This record gives sequence, structure tokens and C-alpha cells, in this order.
Amino acid sequence: MNASIITIGDELLIGQTIDTNSAWLGQQLNQIGVWVNRRVAVGDEKSEIEEALSAELKRNKIVIITGGLGPTADDITKPLLCNYFGGHLINNEAVEKHVRAFFEKRNRPMLDVNILQAQVPNVAQILWNRYGTAPGMLFTKNDALIFSLPGVPLEMKDIMLTSGLEKIKNTFDLPKIIHKTINTAGKGESFVAAMLQNTIATMPTEIKLAYLPNLGQVKLRLTGINVPEHLMIEWQNKIASQLGHLVFATEDISLQQAITNLLISKHKTIACAESCTGGLLGNTFTDISGSSNFFLGSAVCYNNQAKHTILGINYTIIETNTAVSEQVAIAMANGALQLYKSDIAIATTGYLESTTDGKEPQVWIAITDGVNTKTIYQPLPYARVKNKELVLSFTLRLLFSFLTDVNNN
Amino acid sequence: MNASIITIGDELLIGQTIDTNSAWLGQQLNQIGVWVNRRVAVGDEKSEIEEALSAELKRNKIVIITGGLGPTADDITKPLLCNYFGGHLINNEAVEKHVRAFFEKRNRPMLDVNILQAQVPNVAQILWNRYGTAPGMLFTKNDALIFSLPGVPLEMKDIMLTSGLEKIKNTFDLPKIIHKTINTAGKGESFVAAMLQNTIATMPTEIKLAYLPNLGQVKLRLTGINVPEHLMIEWQNKIASQLGHLVFATEDISLQQAITNLLISKHKTIACAESCTGGLLGNTFTDISGSSNFFLGSAVCYNNQAKHTILGINYTIIETNTAVSEQVAIAMANGALQLYKSDIAIATTGYLESTTDGKEPQVWIAITDGVNTKTIYQPLPYARVKNKELVLSFTLRLLFSFLTDVNNN
Repeated sequence: MNASIITIGDELLIGQTIDTNSAWLGQQLNQIGVWVNRRVAVGDEKSEIEEALSAELKRNKIVIITGGLGPTADDITKPLLCNYFGGHLINNEAVEKHVRAFFEKRNRPMLDVNILQAQVPNVAQILWNRYGTAPGMLFTKNDALIFSLPGVPLEMKDIMLTSGLEKIKNTFDLPKIIHKTINTAGKGESFVAAMLQNTIATMPTEIKLAYLPNLGQVKLRLTGINVPEHLMIEWQNKIASQLGHLVFATEDISLQQAITNLLISKHKTIACAESCTGGLLGNTFTDISGSSNFFLGSAVCYNNQAKHTILGINYTIIETNTAVSEQVAIAMANGALQLYKSDIAIATTGYLESTTDGKEPQVWIAITDGVNTKTIYQPLPYARVKNKELVLSFTLRLLFSFLTDVNNN
Repeated sequence: MNASIITIGDELLIGQTIDTNSAWLGQQLNQIGVWVNRRVAVGDEKSEIEEALSAELKRNKIVIITGGLGPTADDITKPLLCNYFGGHLINNEAVEKHVRAFFEKRNRPMLDVNILQAQVPNVAQILWNRYGTAPGMLFTKNDALIFSLPGVPLEMKDIMLTSGLEKIKNTFDLPKIIHKTINTAGKGESFVAAMLQNTIATMPTEIKLAYLPNLGQVKLRLTGINVPEHLMIEWQNKIASQLGHLVFATEDISLQQAITNLLISKHKTIACAESCTGGLLGNTFTDISGSSNFFLGSAVCYNNQAKHTILGINYTIIETNTAVSEQVAIAMANGALQLYKSDIAIATTGYLESTTDGKEPQVWIAITDGVNTKTIYQPLPYARVKNKELVLSFTLRLLFSFLTDVNNN
């Protein structure tokens, strides 16, 4: 069963908004056995939207349209769809009540345009939007389901999770798609592929393998359509054992989630001392629910004075070795360990951009538990923000290997 | 002049990768007067790619293909394009030299698959890829330009900036597209639209206005095709003055960039004390080049002990008012002010999720310069990470209004 996604909005084509909805929809649909095989983005143009809809309906029995339902005049989708499917707009009392309550609850004045959200096509089923005022709509035509959903990610996701996916499952007889993930860090795509060359050559053709590289990590995704679960697991294990210590997870979780799981299971707490990462490490740990169980805090010290006052680093160490040095990284990690009384501390110090006095972007990272200390040095080849993300990636790899190293346990 | 973007890769359709390339391409093309009016995403399927290419070539004279050029077996684009445009693969010595040097420089072993990157279609112009091994390719057919670019954002962008955009400008006679931005914070899309209703009614039809809402901010974008610059500026000013203090910038910059500009021009330094934001504030400031001129650091204190030890907050204040209270937020801001010796300090304390003892997600934010102190309280309606972003948005708005308030200057 295949699906198409149509996204509507000049802001997507002009690039002022990045489309994150489609990726989420792709993931969710895949999990219920629907394969998104086309995605089309069109602007706020009536003819373009109609043409895209007709073309996708010829291909697929599921079409999901996002965007174009806002209250302002540049949103033309609702009347267009109403007309396309041969209906007319009627006032929906339940939606009107919801819209009025929405503004009352937020203590915000309601405008005439807002109440227009209660006008819905008489040929559409309403999909309830808890978090916004534009209702989702479901049209049917020749056995096909056509969804029209708001473009706001929170609203779109909630509508799909509470009713949209269910409608699809109840309408179609879906195949069983199984994904298995092998998550690796430390080597590039071609290196990983070469390690697996011989193994992969004997893999059944109904199982597909894809490499998804991202900043020093490569996610391997096995996909089987109507392949028995045990065969998928067998191949997942085969590949994972081939890749050995490069593997940090055999489920689709991030490296930070794998580290969180380790820290919680080992009852270890962690603190950071951040110079060049500027808070990114702390921010990353605290994105994860339950982080207060292991994350104590982070001392972001952007200048030498803060490094001295807060982390207790002797100015002599900085002057002798410069602020970006192995010695300062170690001193920062030890400083954070003492300041936060954590079991483990990790520190970053580096240049994210070339300095005026000619130093190239580079980083020193140190980790310590008070007994064992590890450091790494890395040159940074990218621009500022990307270099910061790369430092995060190096830091997480260092932390993961520290936590899984038997010598530190 | 219109363009189509075709993105190739199952990883995009299945949603394991978010397509950020298309937004960037949309922005860049727009600036040179090319309007992306269609974007199609297809999987790693020969027939789908060919069909999409043929369809887009019927519509537009510029087609940009990204992805599908990696060294692994799931990338099928290069031979397909070579065949489509009637050529054959030949070895390109310059590319081969570049690929070998690429691995030598990184001290990484080169594999057989890597050197295949030097095989290029004899009917394509090579677009040099400084940052990767897959060269960009430019094909021409019936006055149309067809670009095939690697999917890695860094590589794709560099190729477009160093040669791709130039090829387009030199080939076509392009119209003049002008965008003007009015960036607002503090009110929703429909509120802003209502404020402008009468003004917009008299705007020339060749100027289009779009509303781009995002977490408490609304960006207004005026677009004119072959409209004189002075008329665009006139309407930008008219709209900006109508919106008054909601406007934080009349250029396309983020609120954090606007704050950075203010802090630097006023020679003020800033420090943070972060509880629930966990480092996000510091991370946001340090994403911006030159942040070391005004950002001193951030004390991320996730538990009460750290708030006491590092920020000097009396346990009694926490016990009397709870950790998430106006009093603690103020004490944290004062603590950071003293710890970092900054001119201004800002603090966040909140719950990003409902607590086990039934407290709803909420935040207290405080800002102080040692003389004036402002606080705000906000309930947080979303899930964890989104709530964190919302706190960032509230914090930046508070900081911006603090910096522009004449009473604090």
C-alpha cells in the first residue's frame, strides 16, 4: 500500500520553513505498513494544488495533504478541496464551540477570521484538532482516502495519532513492514559498508539495507516487507556482531538516549564544563525525559575569568597551555566533578571558527570519574554551528566508550 | 523563471532524514529570481526517478536533483542519469586525484567503492565538490539545466555557491524578485493579520504578503516580482509602523541575532542561570558568531544542591517558595549576575512536563541588571522539547523588551 504526501505553502518552496511534517508522516505510515513513495510540495496556487492532487490520486489510494488551512487570506486549500470533491461549506457547531473555547481558554480576543474555521465541507469527515482551530478533514473518492491536515506540526501529529492512522488501518488490508536498526558511531559510511560487504552478499533479496550517515554516525536500516520477524532479527544480529564495538544500539534510538539508558542503569550522575559547546551538552542531555535522574548541571564558562572563578582553574594552567589545550580540558572536567559532586564529568574547550591570531578550528574534550581520565583532540572542518554539533558527536562517543569500558567499572 | 527540485532517497520518504536541502535551495534560488514551484521526493527506484525527471523537465527549465550519489549500492542515480542523457561513464582524472587526496588528508583507508566516484558521465559538466567525494554534475537538454548534487547538505551547498548558482544566472534572463521581512514577536498570526487588515487592502497586487508563524513569533514576508525597491521599502515601513513594538527586526534575522546586535551595540555582557532550559539559552547565544563579545556563560543547575552551591541560593528560599517560583527565578538571576560579573543576567526555572506530584508544566523567567528586575510566568502547553523551545522564545522576548525599554538604559 503506497501513499503520497502533498505539502502546500509558498513558505516551504521559498525555503523559509523546513518541512518536518513529511518525515514524521513517513515514519508513522511505515510503521503501519504504508510506504510513502511520493512527496510533492506545491505553492499557494489553486491550479498547482489541484493538479498535484489529481496526479497523486491516480497513483495512490492514500493522499495526505498538509498546510494551507490557516486563518489568513493566503490559505486557499479548504474551499478548493470542498469544490474538488463536489461539496459546499457548512457551519459545524462542534468546531465553532471548540474555536470559541480555544480563545477563551487562552484569554485572547477572537477575530472574525477565526470563526471561519468552523466552516467545513459537507462532504468531509471532521478529524478533531485539539491543539488548534483548523479541523483536519477526511475526504473519500473511489476507495481512496484523502486527508487535509493543518501544517502546524503539533496539530498535524495529534490528529494523525488520535484518528488519522486508525482510519487508514481500518480501511485497507496492510502488509507487514518490519524495520530493524543497527546504530553505529565512529566510522564513515563506506568503511561500514566495506566491513559488511561479504555478509550482505548472502542476505535474502526481500530484505533491503540502507546506510544513513550523519556526523560521524551511520545508522543501518534493514527493511523487510512480509519477512518473518525472526529472519529480520537474525540478520540484524549478524550485521551487529560484524560491526562489533562500532554499534551503540540495535534499536532506533539516538546516541544520547543510549547514554541515558547506561547512566540510569549504572546509577551514575554526570556534570559538564562547557566552553566552546556553550550549553549544547547540557541542552542535549535535558532534552530527554528523566534526565534529572542523572544530569546535575553544566558550568558554561565562555571566558577565562569564569573558568577560573567557577571551575577553579589556575590562570597559570591557561597561560602555559592556552585555553584550548588538553591540560585545560582535564582541569575543567575535574572542576565540574568537584563543583557538582557528580560521578562523571565531561569538558569541552575549543575554537569553532578560525581565530584572528590564526588558530584553526579544533577541540579538546576530557572525561573523568576522578580515577580514570580520557581525552581526545579533533580538528573541526566545518562552519561554526556544524562544528559545535560535531563536538557534541565526539563528546557523546567518548562518553559512551567510557561508560562501556570495563576498566572504568 | 521556475525551477523544480527532485530529492532522491528512501531515507527521506521513510522519514529517517529531514530534508533541509530543499529549503536552502528555495532561498538561494529565490534570491537570484528563480521561483521553486514544485518539489518532488522519490525513493531509490529507477522508474520513479526517471518519471519524476521527465515530468519536471516538461514544466521547468531548471531541475535540481539532490541525493543518490553516495558510494554504497543503494545509490543508483549516476548511471541512471548517464543513460537518460545518452552518455556513458568515463574516468575523470581530476576527480580521481581529488578522491585519493581526500582520503590521504583524513588518513583514512580508501576503498574500491570510493574510487568509483571518479567515474562520471561524458555528457555532464563536473561541478567541483570540495567537501566530499561525489562530484556535482550538470546536464543540459533543450535549453534546460539539470543539476545532480550530493545529498550531504554541506557538499550540496558549497557546490551551488561556488558554481551552480552562477551557471543559472549565466544561462537565463532572470526577473528581479525582492523580499522584505518584518519580524514580530508576542502575538499570533490572526492577531497580526487583523492589525493589518485595512493597510493590506490598499497594497498593490504585485506585492504578496505571507505570514510565517513559529512559536510566539510571526515573520511577515513581502514578495515583489519586478516591483521597484522603493515601493517595497515603502510598504515594509508602512506595515512595520502599524505593528509598532511587536516588530523586532525589519530584516530576515532571528530574534537572537537582533538581541546580539543590541548587546554588542550597547556594550553589555550577559550571563544565564538555567534550570529547565538545561543549557539551551547558552547554546542559542553561542550559535552566533561573535558571541564571546557579550556572552560570559551559563550556570546550568538542574538540582537544588547546584542552585545552592553555585548560584548561592539559600535553601530557605527554595523550601518556602518551591524551586519553580518567582523568588527562585530572581535569586538565580542575581546569582548569575554576581558569579559571572555580567551587566545583565537571565534565569529560567520550570517544569517541562507534568510532575509526579501533579504540577503542570510551567516556567518562571527573571531578568535583572542589578537595578531593574522583570519576571514573567507562563504555563507550558506542549511536550517536553517543544516546551523548552517555548521557554527560549519567552526568554528572548523578555530580554529584547528589557534591552529596548528606555527605563533600563
